[in-house]
Amino acid sequence: MTTVAASAYDTLHEHFRQIHLLEGTAAILSWDQETMMPAGGVAFRGEQLAQLAGLGHRRRTDPKLGELLAAAADSLEGDEQAPARVNLREWNRDRERAMKLPAELVEEFARVSSTAQHEWAEARRDSDFARFKPWLEKLLELNRRKAECLGWDRAGGEPWDALGDLYEPGLSAKDIESVFTPLASRLRALIAEIASAPKRPDDRFDRLELPEAQQEAFVRFVADAIGFDFSRGRLDRSTHPFCGGSHRNDVRLTTRFRSNLTLDALGSTMHECGHGIYEQGLSAEHLGTPMGEAASLSVHESQSRLWENQVGRSQPFWRWLTPKLDGFFGSAVAGLDAAAMYGAANRVEPGFIRVEADEATYNLHIMIRFDLERRMLRGDLAVDDLPAAWNEHYRNYLGLEVPDDRRGCLQDVHWSMGAMGYFPTYTLGTMMSAGLFEAAERAMPGLAEGLARGEFGPLREWLVANVHAHGRRHRFRELYQLVVGEAFSADPLLRYLEGKLRPLHGI
Amino acid sequence: MTTVAASAYDTLHEHFRQIHLLEGTAAILSWDQETMMPAGGVAFRGEQLAQLAGLGHRRRTDPKLGELLAAAADSLEGDEQAPARVNLREWNRDRERAMKLPAELVEEFARVSSTAQHEWAEARRDSDFARFKPWLEKLLELNRRKAECLGWDRAGGEPWDALGDLYEPGLSAKDIESVFTPLASRLRALIAEIASAPKRPDDRFDRLELPEAQQEAFVRFVADAIGFDFSRGRLDRSTHPFCGGSHRNDVRLTTRFRSNLTLDALGSTMHECGHGIYEQGLSAEHLGTPMGEAASLSVHESQSRLWENQVGRSQPFWRWLTPKLDGFFGSAVAGLDAAAMYGAANRVEPGFIRVEADEATYNLHIMIRFDLERRMLRGDLAVDDLPAAWNEHYRNYLGLEVPDDRRGCLQDVHWSMGAMGYFPTYTLGTMMSAGLFEAAERAMPGLAEGLARGEFGPLREWLVANVHAHGRRHRFRELYQLVVGEAFSADPLLRYLEGKLRPLHGI
Repeated sequence: MTTVAASAYDTLHEHFRQIHLLEGTAAILSWDQETMMPAGGVAFRGEQLAQLAGLGHRRRTDPKLGELLAAAADSLEGDEQAPARVNLREWNRDRERAMKLPAELVEEFARVSSTAQHEWAEARRDSDFARFKPWLEKLLELNRRKAECLGWDRAGGEPWDALGDLYEPGLSAKDIESVFTPLASRLRALIAEIASAPKRPDDRFDRLELPEAQQEAFVRFVADAIGFDFSRGRLDRSTHPFCGGSHRNDVRLTTRFRSNLTLDALGSTMHECGHGIYEQGLSAEHLGTPMGEAASLSVHESQSRLWENQVGRSQPFWRWLTPKLDGFFGSAVAGLDAAAMYGAANRVEPGFIRVEADEATYNLHIMIRFDLERRMLRGDLAVDDLPAAWNEHYRNYLGLEVPDDRRGCLQDVHWSMGAMGYFPTYTLGTMMSAGLFEAAERAMPGLAEGLARGEFGPLREWLVANVHAHGRRHRFRELYQLVVGEAFSADPLLRYLEGKLRPLHGI
Repeated sequence: MTTVAASAYDTLHEHFRQIHLLEGTAAILSWDQETMMPAGGVAFRGEQLAQLAGLGHRRRTDPKLGELLAAAADSLEGDEQAPARVNLREWNRDRERAMKLPAELVEEFARVSSTAQHEWAEARRDSDFARFKPWLEKLLELNRRKAECLGWDRAGGEPWDALGDLYEPGLSAKDIESVFTPLASRLRALIAEIASAPKRPDDRFDRLELPEAQQEAFVRFVADAIGFDFSRGRLDRSTHPFCGGSHRNDVRLTTRFRSNLTLDALGSTMHECGHGIYEQGLSAEHLGTPMGEAASLSVHESQSRLWENQVGRSQPFWRWLTPKLDGFFGSAVAGLDAAAMYGAANRVEPGFIRVEADEATYNLHIMIRFDLERRMLRGDLAVDDLPAAWNEHYRNYLGLEVPDDRRGCLQDVHWSMGAMGYFPTYTLGTMMSAGLFEAAERAMPGLAEGLARGEFGPLREWLVANVHAHGRRHRFRELYQLVVGEAFSADPLLRYLEGKLRPLHGI
């Protein structure tokens, strides 16, 4: 590396560090809005977030960047996988994307989505789609403009592709469809098998009414035990659970509680812990550069789903946790053994709410959302017709009559945040989580027995070494191949689900 | 107003609105640091605050401002007190001050004070002055550099003047000394009278151990009753109570609880509520301009001290509140009547802690700090010698032997925030609060009887109309003269204190 190159690279490093600081500030403001901010702050907060988005965007599109990036690229030597080369590649990608978006659109997007989230929360509470409708229309319009600016393959593509690429680089709607279609038929077959199965798991625990304070102590204990570091993060409550925060040393999870949904609170908490453990596991050395950032949203979801499902719905986990229940819930849980808890954690039953869904039906919820947002973006589905289309899908995919929009198309926060193109990452991540867990079991033969003793460190460290440490070095499929040792597919997920759910239902 | 002028003024308005948004963002980050942020976030947070300080400073010193301010001034017509003229005057003042400070110093100040606050909290917890010392030295050095840049009257002034002016425009250390010296002798005489008085108020309530959860419900009830609007604000806990937040619709108070200090929690809460009610009462129309900002720190303290003392330590207040105590504390408060509560709220006893001090000794705590920071800034007192000098003052002023630095020079957050020159505003504000309350009683003859019925609205609305609505239109003494109808002096405060405390002690 010559001195000139070092200098160009160092200048870029500092430039992007400043962007990272701004984005961290915006992330804290967004977290604050969902957890702490009084209602009166909504309009001003939208302006603050728009300002920060604009400041970040102007830095990403700074005219001097092109020259600096070229100067640094010309003179950096070594492996394409070397951190500085990876950073340059990703800085270029981020810049190219930003250059396509006018600052005015970026600011308007931040402003509208901030207010829309508040309107969504109110609309959801009252099951009042009419209240949210104008905001969804604005966000759809902004997303379509964004897709136009970003562009997509006009020959065989569609607007969704440009947005999906923001969350999972390089995957088009057609790619996702080709993954989802066969997966859907296998899952529907499994759900049908289970519906007519001779046996149903014991679900007593899931019918208990347990005080929220006890539930909170319980999920905090589990979060700490599986390795979420509370000296570098926190856990609060919000309408919709999420993982926010500004960097690896300040990671903010939220969860939610209802008296009769203790396993939902646990699952949500473990899910967000998976995101949080990923963030906390990112490289300290590369903080503020792409090598210190999460690879993609699908990889992020692979981490959350792995802790939620492969760990939190496993036999070893419940062998470890069941004897501890008494300390949190006392006599209410008398007579529940590890087998009963494992059963309750794996009850399959089609329901209205995605985040409460069992593992067999979960991905159908995702497929419904993917189809609807794709059609809205293409212009084939008007926002006016969304509730009816949503309800029709729930009838066809899950055999359910949606009773109201609160339990229908108002349930998820994502569209109100302006995030269209996000949902498929949950299923891609779920598929990856199964592949990763198989690889972890191959790499650590005593893994299951360790989990049954509450030893979560080895799994966490394996994930840090094999996934977190790479930052944005690899694309999703490339990382999958590298860590799992085979091409990305639904096979591990289907092996895992069929292998677990059939015996539990006496099939 | 000509079109050209309107255009220059509108450009300025938008420019300063952007600064206001940035400052609001920094304020939320500072609040978050004291209330929510995990310990791991300290270093990064310092960088974030430094960045925001730098961004704001660059906007305040934007070269185009000079011309715009001149163009707007030339063509604005009307009264000097008209909102646009006031805004221009204050924008000019803010700009002139900012122009004297290098951006590097502003950023460094924000970075260091963010980390120093964290170090102070740790040092205070462990009563470990050595841990805080290097940070205080850095902050003293930065403050001295800041004073050098801002400048002061070299003929008869001193560095403190330049810093004091940031919190209370135009008042020098000598001005303050000339107010403090006679006040000190009257207060010391009153304290001596009380020390040898025949009677002591009933202080049973202040010796009760009461659960923090009950205390919290109690102070929230009072905060709501006196008119802090929780739809535009919140109340949390922190090491040192403060009022933060980003604007009138998002005001964030903190307080603190200890089982045996319920009146301290109440007093701290009412104090911060006073600040909060001021912020919430600022003009909505003028949001983001000087006409929508607090006049000065002394005026701010006049609002906090008025609700804490003139209201919270008054007979009518306790006639209203005492019958409600049972609902919060049950049998623990049996037998306590309004006279006993009024007595407990007005117990005079020299103590180590400023924020727990009674009204007679409070201002001596301030005078001690003023003298020490003044000497440190002049270079007459080394940071090394601060604990000894502090303890000597407590011996001389209050007759107390300070047992440790936690209860000595580590007790206050202010210096760790870099705020030197701030403390006198508490006493100036306390003096003003007495003058304001006399004026309010003159304006509303039934005021006391209304307070005894829990009617706090008229007092609050009078403060909004007479103080809050003016924004930064008037300087402290001018506002005092306008509202109180006489020149600023210690007379109302001494009348109030002597008139209340003598009868309570049988003098």
